Amino acid sequence: MERIVECVPNFSIGDDAKTIEMIVNVIRQTEGVYLLDYEHDTAYNRLVVTYFGEPEATKKAMLNAGRVAVERIDMRKHQGQHPRIGALDVAPFVPIKNITVEECINLSKEFAKAFAEEHKVPVYLYGEAAETPEKGDVDWIRKGEWEALAENMKDPERKPAFGPVKPHPTAGATMTGAREVMVGLNINLGTTDLRIAKAVAKAIHRKKGGLVRIKAMGCLWEDRGITQIGITNTDFRKSPLYRQMELVKIEAARYGVQVVGAEFCGLVPIDALVDVTNYYLRLEGFSKSDLLEVAIDRKLAELNPKHASTISCK
Amino acid sequence: MERIVECVPNFSIGDDAKTIEMIVNVIRQTEGVYLLDYEHDTAYNRLVVTYFGEPEATKKAMLNAGRVAVERIDMRKHQGQHPRIGALDVAPFVPIKNITVEECINLSKEFAKAFAEEHKVPVYLYGEAAETPEKGDVDWIRKGEWEALAENMKDPERKPAFGPVKPHPTAGATMTGAREVMVGLNINLGTTDLRIAKAVAKAIHRKKGGLVRIKAMGCLWEDRGITQIGITNTDFRKSPLYRQMELVKIEAARYGVQVVGAEFCGLVPIDALVDVTNYYLRLEGFSKSDLLEVAIDRKLAELNPKHASTISCK
Repeated sequence: MERIVECVPNFSIGDDAKTIEMIVNVIRQTEGVYLLDYEHDTAYNRLVVTYFGEPEATKKAMLNAGRVAVERIDMRKHQGQHPRIGALDVAPFVPIKNITVEECINLSKEFAKAFAEEHKVPVYLYGEAAETPEKGDVDWIRKGEWEALAENMKDPERKPAFGPVKPHPTAGATMTGAREVMVGLNINLGTTDLRIAKAVAKAIHRKKGGLVRIKAMGCLWEDRGITQIGITNTDFRKSPLYRQMELVKIEAARYGVQVVGAEFCGLVPIDALVDVTNYYLRLEGFSKSDLLEVAIDRKLAELNPKHASTISCK
Repeated sequence: MERIVECVPNFSIGDDAKTIEMIVNVIRQTEGVYLLDYEHDTAYNRLVVTYFGEPEATKKAMLNAGRVAVERIDMRKHQGQHPRIGALDVAPFVPIKNITVEECINLSKEFAKAFAEEHKVPVYLYGEAAETPEKGDVDWIRKGEWEALAENMKDPERKPAFGPVKPHPTAGATMTGAREVMVGLNINLGTTDLRIAKAVAKAIHRKKGGLVRIKAMGCLWEDRGITQIGITNTDFRKSPLYRQMELVKIEAARYGVQVVGAEFCGLVPIDALVDVTNYYLRLEGFSKSDLLEVAIDRKLAELNPKHASTISCK
């Protein structure tokens, strides 16, 4: 596979096994894309699918899955803890191999145009794909959620990039765009005091004076007698994982609390490990190309253009 | 490439560009092996070649290179700082993909037998391939070097595993065996006091009470105004890189000295980075299979058995 895009669409689906199955299957059956994972959370009533493939194929799969979502999901009946504005709530295109963020932005715009035309669903561009950083803010777009959408869309500032200037009656609206790989790194604190976990979470959160690419929330992990800070890092190249970890340590130490563990939520790109290793081993000029497996794959690709590997490029 | 072995033969070559070229070329021209790197050091008068390929092909390349070495190198004329016992001084087979250390040991024995028979060169087995840990010790085998070899070999304890019980008149003797990937991680200290660097090197060295898989030596890096501890880690799975780094910090701190940098010498396997990340991010149960690129390559290999990648296995 010469070029690889990863897609992580989120669908607002409640307790509806049939629709979940149909969405997953239609992605699986799209030629040239490969399903990596899917997860349905009943507290969120949200289906998150992860798949990858050649750029054009990923767009096609997104249109196929979006069609099922529009046909089968009725937002008027949807409830769940996670903020959402539509049936296909968010459709991110992530550059993995031999493709730039800019190319993924274009791909998301092509998807947005086709999806809006086919179903008369308004589509917003978020993140780097948006006109301005303010208009690309996911929380700003989702403000008031599906329930406030019709009213919100009367504001000229909230005109969607594609499609009608009113919500689809059952499918609401959709956001699409390109983003870097998101890394979920949750950090455990040796305290049961939720106020401390929340204070630390707040201190590192991008909207509360923390790191630019970090969202964080504190919660209690009762049976282990600890608290956990759930952290989403939307660009580990800008806010590296070591900085996230060290800042949590510093903020927790102020309460005499220590970091007692951590876990990745989801998959992690090798580049994030290169970053961490560079920092903690105090390396001067170490990069991905110094990895043994990368050197071997490069050599094989040099001599045999058909040799494919995900690590050897980008 | 289904299975991959890496080989890192060391040749005792002085200022002889023609022989260097012939050895490198004969490896390059062996079908099924790929040259990664070669380096000739004039202080050591030593040529180190790195190549990889399918197991059988790597053995063939080693025999081809060994033939050139025996024909063209005369140990009677060789001098250099690095201890050595023969023209093809050491021939390690390193398991990289879909192959075990045990299989590499067998490969090294097949090479040893063929090489000894063809050239009447005595061959020692070192490391895991040796009869006992004592007899597998590289420093023990090289004791007194080429110059003492004829005398040393009279000791029944020093009978080689293959070939005659006396040195080849011009090619000396050879060592072969299997080993894990070696990682060179040199650590810089913020001091020009060589005594401190040497004391720290000694403290972490496996023979002086340090870590089991570590060899270390201190040296002065005059133009940068620092000292460097040159460290070879022969099995980062047993003595992980973070332990190596933290121990150097602790030993240096005793003199009020700090680590001011570090550098990898040679290529680094991804597993070593997984280790480092696990430790410093205090992760619970993170492994190579949680890497995005590994998950993608696995999926591609599942659906297309011809998809090859170096990271997806082992």
